[in-house]
Amino acid sequence: MNTAVAAALPHTAAPPSPLAVRYATVRARTLALAAPLSAEDAMVQSMPDASPAKWHLAHTTWFFERFVLATRPGYAPIDADWHYLFNSYYQSIGPAHARPQRGLLSRPTLDEVLHFRAEIDQRVLAALQAGNLSEQAQHQLLLGLHHEQQHQELLLTDIKHAFWSNPLQPAYRTDLPASPARALPLQWRSSPERIVEIGAPVWPTQSTFAYDNESPVHRALVPAHALANRPVNNEEYRQFVQAGGYREPRWWMSEGWTLCQEQQWQHPLYWDDALEREFTLGGWRALDPHAPVCHLSYFEADAYARWCDARLPTEFEWEAATAGRALRGRFADADQLHPGGAEEEGDIVQLFGDVWEWTSSAYGPYPGFRTFPGNLGEYNGKFMCGQWVLRGGSCATPADHLRASYRNFFAPSARWQFAGLRLARDVA
Amino acid sequence: MNTAVAAALPHTAAPPSPLAVRYATVRARTLALAAPLSAEDAMVQSMPDASPAKWHLAHTTWFFERFVLATRPGYAPIDADWHYLFNSYYQSIGPAHARPQRGLLSRPTLDEVLHFRAEIDQRVLAALQAGNLSEQAQHQLLLGLHHEQQHQELLLTDIKHAFWSNPLQPAYRTDLPASPARALPLQWRSSPERIVEIGAPVWPTQSTFAYDNESPVHRALVPAHALANRPVNNEEYRQFVQAGGYREPRWWMSEGWTLCQEQQWQHPLYWDDALEREFTLGGWRALDPHAPVCHLSYFEADAYARWCDARLPTEFEWEAATAGRALRGRFADADQLHPGGAEEEGDIVQLFGDVWEWTSSAYGPYPGFRTFPGNLGEYNGKFMCGQWVLRGGSCATPADHLRASYRNFFAPSARWQFAGLRLARDVA
Amino acid sequence: MNTAVAAALPHTAAPPSPLAVRYATVRARTLALAAPLSAEDAMVQSMPDASPAKWHLAHTTWFFERFVLATRPGYAPIDADWHYLFNSYYQSIGPAHARPQRGLLSRPTLDEVLHFRAEIDQRVLAALQAGNLSEQAQHQLLLGLHHEQQHQELLLTDIKHAFWSNPLQPAYRTDLPASPARALPLQWRSSPERIVEIGAPVWPTQSTFAYDNESPVHRALVPAHALANRPVNNEEYRQFVQAGGYREPRWWMSEGWTLCQEQQWQHPLYWDDALEREFTLGGWRALDPHAPVCHLSYFEADAYARWCDARLPTEFEWEAATAGRALRGRFADADQLHPGGAEEEGDIVQLFGDVWEWTSSAYGPYPGFRTFPGNLGEYNGKFMCGQWVLRGGSCATPADHLRASYRNFFAPSARWQFAGLRLARDVA
Amino acid sequence: MNTAVAAALPHTAAPPSPLAVRYATVRARTLALAAPLSAEDAMVQSMPDASPAKWHLAHTTWFFERFVLATRPGYAPIDADWHYLFNSYYQSIGPAHARPQRGLLSRPTLDEVLHFRAEIDQRVLAALQAGNLSEQAQHQLLLGLHHEQQHQELLLTDIKHAFWSNPLQPAYRTDLPASPARALPLQWRSSPERIVEIGAPVWPTQSTFAYDNESPVHRALVPAHALANRPVNNEEYRQFVQAGGYREPRWWMSEGWTLCQEQQWQHPLYWDDALEREFTLGGWRALDPHAPVCHLSYFEADAYARWCDARLPTEFEWEAATAGRALRGRFADADQLHPGGAEEEGDIVQLFGDVWEWTSSAYGPYPGFRTFPGNLGEYNGKFMCGQWVLRGGSCATPADHLRASYRNFFAPSARWQFAGLRLARDVA
Repeated sequence: MNTAVAAALPHTAAPPSPLAVRYATVRARTLALAAPLSAEDAMVQSMPDASPAKWHLAHTTWFFERFVLATRPGYAPIDADWHYLFNSYYQSIGPAHARPQRGLLSRPTLDEVLHFRAEIDQRVLAALQAGNLSEQAQHQLLLGLHHEQQHQELLLTDIKHAFWSNPLQPAYRTDLPASPARALPLQWRSSPERIVEIGAPVWPTQSTFAYDNESPVHRALVPAHALANRPVNNEEYRQFVQAGGYREPRWWMSEGWTLCQEQQWQHPLYWDDALEREFTLGGWRALDPHAPVCHLSYFEADAYARWCDARLPTEFEWEAATAGRALRGRFADADQLHPGGAEEEGDIVQLFGDVWEWTSSAYGPYPGFRTFPGNLGEYNGKFMCGQWVLRGGSCATPADHLRASYRNFFAPSARWQFAGLRLARDVA
Repeated sequence: MNTAVAAALPHTAAPPSPLAVRYATVRARTLALAAPLSAEDAMVQSMPDASPAKWHLAHTTWFFERFVLATRPGYAPIDADWHYLFNSYYQSIGPAHARPQRGLLSRPTLDEVLHFRAEIDQRVLAALQAGNLSEQAQHQLLLGLHHEQQHQELLLTDIKHAFWSNPLQPAYRTDLPASPARALPLQWRSSPERIVEIGAPVWPTQSTFAYDNESPVHRALVPAHALANRPVNNEEYRQFVQAGGYREPRWWMSEGWTLCQEQQWQHPLYWDDALEREFTLGGWRALDPHAPVCHLSYFEADAYARWCDARLPTEFEWEAATAGRALRGRFADADQLHPGGAEEEGDIVQLFGDVWEWTSSAYGPYPGFRTFPGNLGEYNGKFMCGQWVLRGGSCATPADHLRASYRNFFAPSARWQFAGLRLARDVA
Repeated sequence: MNTAVAAALPHTAAPPSPLAVRYATVRARTLALAAPLSAEDAMVQSMPDASPAKWHLAHTTWFFERFVLATRPGYAPIDADWHYLFNSYYQSIGPAHARPQRGLLSRPTLDEVLHFRAEIDQRVLAALQAGNLSEQAQHQLLLGLHHEQQHQELLLTDIKHAFWSNPLQPAYRTDLPASPARALPLQWRSSPERIVEIGAPVWPTQSTFAYDNESPVHRALVPAHALANRPVNNEEYRQFVQAGGYREPRWWMSEGWTLCQEQQWQHPLYWDDALEREFTLGGWRALDPHAPVCHLSYFEADAYARWCDARLPTEFEWEAATAGRALRGRFADADQLHPGGAEEEGDIVQLFGDVWEWTSSAYGPYPGFRTFPGNLGEYNGKFMCGQWVLRGGSCATPADHLRASYRNFFAPSARWQFAGLRLARDVA
Repeated sequence: MNTAVAAALPHTAAPPSPLAVRYATVRARTLALAAPLSAEDAMVQSMPDASPAKWHLAHTTWFFERFVLATRPGYAPIDADWHYLFNSYYQSIGPAHARPQRGLLSRPTLDEVLHFRAEIDQRVLAALQAGNLSEQAQHQLLLGLHHEQQHQELLLTDIKHAFWSNPLQPAYRTDLPASPARALPLQWRSSPERIVEIGAPVWPTQSTFAYDNESPVHRALVPAHALANRPVNNEEYRQFVQAGGYREPRWWMSEGWTLCQEQQWQHPLYWDDALEREFTLGGWRALDPHAPVCHLSYFEADAYARWCDARLPTEFEWEAATAGRALRGRFADADQLHPGGAEEEGDIVQLFGDVWEWTSSAYGPYPGFRTFPGNLGEYNGKFMCGQWVLRGGSCATPADHLRASYRNFFAPSARWQFAGLRLARDVA
């Protein structure tokens, strides 16, 4: 428990509960991520898909106020007007400020938002300490912590895009370490056809947390196939670019090709035109040939795979590969905030951390899927259309946020996430 | 063989080959569908997704010229300029006229296009007769016939939209019969979890035709579930509308709700605001309460299912239900061109014909999928992103075009196809 | 009186009135202009600013039905539904079909529209013959004839754009003569500062027809200036293009430069990229160096003038220059339908006909301006914002439609009209 | 000379020159206007037409660096990268950051921009003191001061729009006085036709400053007309709104009516729907019935005038009315920052200050107009298309910035400026 966390917890005779410690820890981590940002930096919204850091700080706090504290009758919100400002997309609880306008909110100020956070933290921790949160409220508190961890990653990807969009292209931090990766030859790991168990037990019926979209556990038939031992790296992807991959429609989905031409894609989002450097949270750096390629859209990942006469794995193939493997990898906790080469040994490496891996699976419901009950039913279910599943977490994901069953999802056009790919192949 | 077909075939001593007969039959059917249209009607393009009837007539003909006749060295095209005009989306063989501009082509005239058809028919049939088409050319000829049948259905759905877009809202034909459907109670048919064989053998390796996207045959695990005995009907869907289904975000996918509001959807595309009549290819008619609801987008079908506490079936659940069933139903051959109630008896009815059934399956490749070789690889594969699978054919699909393994696909926003739904449910 | 006109007039003992003859003449001329077009050609709407020829034929007829025939109580319209279809922009008399959708109207057919024309002509001529049109109805009939003449020119410019938009780029007529122009050196004609009378007396208070926007006659102070003896020709304009005029922002209005870049203008609308040929109503032709440059937007005309260290004339400077000059020039009556070089002699030539001349005058009301009374007040007044005045008529304008006081107007971005320019200069 | 100004001036034996004092005064005023804003407030760009306050602070400073300091050979800019960021639209000196992205610049910070200002001020004042600025540089310095005063007004109108766009709608300042206006009956002042001198002598040929667009002095014929003694007030305009003025197309220009419907205008921009309150720089306030109506687009001003059977004055009528009148009025110096009622007596009041008055004059060049020489030729000339002239200054204009010949200009759709109207009428 670090100093910031300890300071946040109530000073009482009884030791804080594990949930209180977890709450204080997650909340302190968000503040630490925002610490390098000025009030001005925290206001930038560089595109409608991204949100200002200040909004992330406020929205995650609003989540606890609305879904934990306000579940108690008579609760008086800190500022009733903020309910509208910091609701993201929960239509069942009222209208929300238009997403593309989030960057216009000079008020409330960053200071006010930080005070809002501190005040809500105090209220939540006091309620936990007093033991007067209903079971439902406690569940929603836990959900709120996972929710906040998602926003921690988004805060990083959004600020990266914001800084890159500024012609001055400043670094988010100048103290981020970079150690070049070692070469690791590409190898294929084959699996025969088999039935596997996919997903996580339904929470909170079962005590281990999982999002509704990971449940229920169900059986799936995974065909015979081969999976690459590691993600595609920068050097491999650069060859695709140099071979004219961005100028050849035959590698691309029709919709991806249209986008590629309209937006004049020529290489991954953060690469320079010379294909030698990339923009990172630590500023511009030389491209590490052996590190996983990153910030690809689904369309780019898919096109690359086709160029290799390979394909993206399904999410079931991916999840099946994790069986019996420890959930280790380069997550946000490593504080590098950029993907690097494999440090582990093994037949298949880097399934977790470094880069989210695009799968060929459209994001949809599992057999027997049920949304969370109540207003939080809007959390995941209504996005099960037009999005693709990514697996494994990234260098910007908190380690204890991820699970082997975790399903991230984005539109196939999204390029600003830490997303790369691992190849798969059919096996006769 | 009807008179038009017989007239088209070469008058020779030897009887025409089955392929020649099939060619003449399919080609004559397209002409018959276009017969009620004036040259002006045949020019209308009411939205970018639709094409003018004249373009359908020309494009399908161009397909035979380009992929059958022009495979022979030295072939002289009828008009080299038309190559550009009537290419749809085959980027590998050259640029194409912009799709949204197809309605601007007063030249070539309808007469010129009809002469183009006649001339190409003569050349194709002569080549068949002479036996000087390569095996590949013959395969592409067969593919061209299936291709033309797809455009027969599109010609109908596009002209329906065109006529509906004209404030005068004329009928395509005034001789189309309408016979009210009988009531058929909704019942559920349950299946246990099982492994099923899905798909069709690879053509032309195997001699039975199938599109590349239906292959290869592979095994899939279908979970325990229940399937409705018939499609949702107009009366049931009207209750959803009357219950405020188009004003309640909680039934909708997020993207669907945005669209519903932006475009002010209030009921299925061709219904009147009183929910009493619908626009058909035979003009405005009273809504038949027991006939399948039609012209829904995926978003509407999915929202309706959620309102019923049900869901859409997966395409595997749907295909599994066809096992052992004859491919019978109300297809275009019935010449009603509008869905009606079930005439067959049985535990599950109307799987084929009447309305395409939206499934919950995103359109993607089967394990081991390979596109057709060469330029025709663009036929299906590049659209496997952002589309949803529909199954079973409709009242506008030629009967001999359909297969149980047939996978139709459209964007989830598409409303102008003969598309409805059948409910499914998870079974514990 | 040609045969078509004579045939249209009622065969009665009394000779037809001059107004009846004029009516029959103008109406016959429109038909003659449409004669080279098939029903398909007559349906094309190549951009929202343009209308299909069929719509021009119908709308001008509707004008007489609505504003002449229907002024009599109890008038039964030929088809009440068409009122909505063929109203252009008269909001005070009811809603109108959306302009960009005019190209979707396969119904009514061209034949039906031609019958509509014939029937209305019979009714109008019968009413004239019977002498039972009110004075107001007779005024609106006269206005309707001028209105129809405007649409005659628009029919030509719209069909030219329609044919150019078709990749086959057919000719509207193949019998149009072209005779190369002789060189005429550019010379300047100076005028001292003076007060001039501008405009036309108010019609119908005064018996000579003029649009409301030309009235009342008023005095204007025209500063000392010089005017070019002739319009800018193709050779001169080509030098501007070759000197990089379309790549240098300094010659352009800010809004024009933005447009030039967005739409990638590189030369006048109908020129080829080699700057050697231009598309005409007679098809592609070699650019005549000495003929007036044509199909310029205001932005291009203005940029060219600035490049010459000159400017566009004001509409008052232009009108002042016409004093004492006969209204002669190459109008539509010459049946060349393309601008040519000067055939007249004189110190200033081609003020009338050949090309409309962009002026530097924004289109606004004259002092004391009043719109026509009643619904026709919408004819001109409501467009006095964001448009620029053009003067002098073109090779597509009927000769008896034009006046020295005539004010044509278009948005500064409009390129599809027969519009060129004449230079002016300040004189110290 | 206030304290801030005195502090800014170099402390030397010789008294500062009048130009130095003026420089220090203007620059200090900008800082004072920005003082109520936090760094976050100073970053908001609520629409592409508006700019963040920080950008105004930087751009005006850049103007002096680029057009005064950098005219000397070997000048080293403070930060060469900022040249791109803070260039507005001077294409002749290089590319500029895209206008709609100005709100994304968290870097440079407000502090850095303020240091930039201080550093440039020091350099400019030192150069002035040292007497080593060329005559041209001194001219551009003077122009820069007028330029900065324009941005002072824009800073106010932009921040007003920014605060209004925030759902919290904070006040810019809470100490702004509001004193209700007295009723002043509307009266008409007639003038006979006459020739007047319009405009200002060419600067710097003549020593008194004027923008290029105000020159040269020239004669204009002003027709007989009547002008209202005061601007239209809120009560009068409210009657127009209540009479359905925003729902009746006949009062509106065609383009204005389209905009009114598309953007659902129902009253002036900053009024509430109850027509009782308006948003001001001091927050929400009761509407003062006798104060001039404000924040109208040209379309609204013009529609109101038509509803009154009146019209907007031409800019010449307006300028003629100022003859012999002192340039007095409620300008920004009054520090009310909101229009109020007339305090002066006289036959015509409030020509200056309170609200800019829309004229019926399209913004164009005067006879003999020449742009400023060199790069600053882009200052005004290239906008002479599609804009309308406003006259007289507003409550947000610095008093010593205005002249009777001053021509402000905006697009007819612009609503966020302090713009109202004064009626005019034709006189027989």
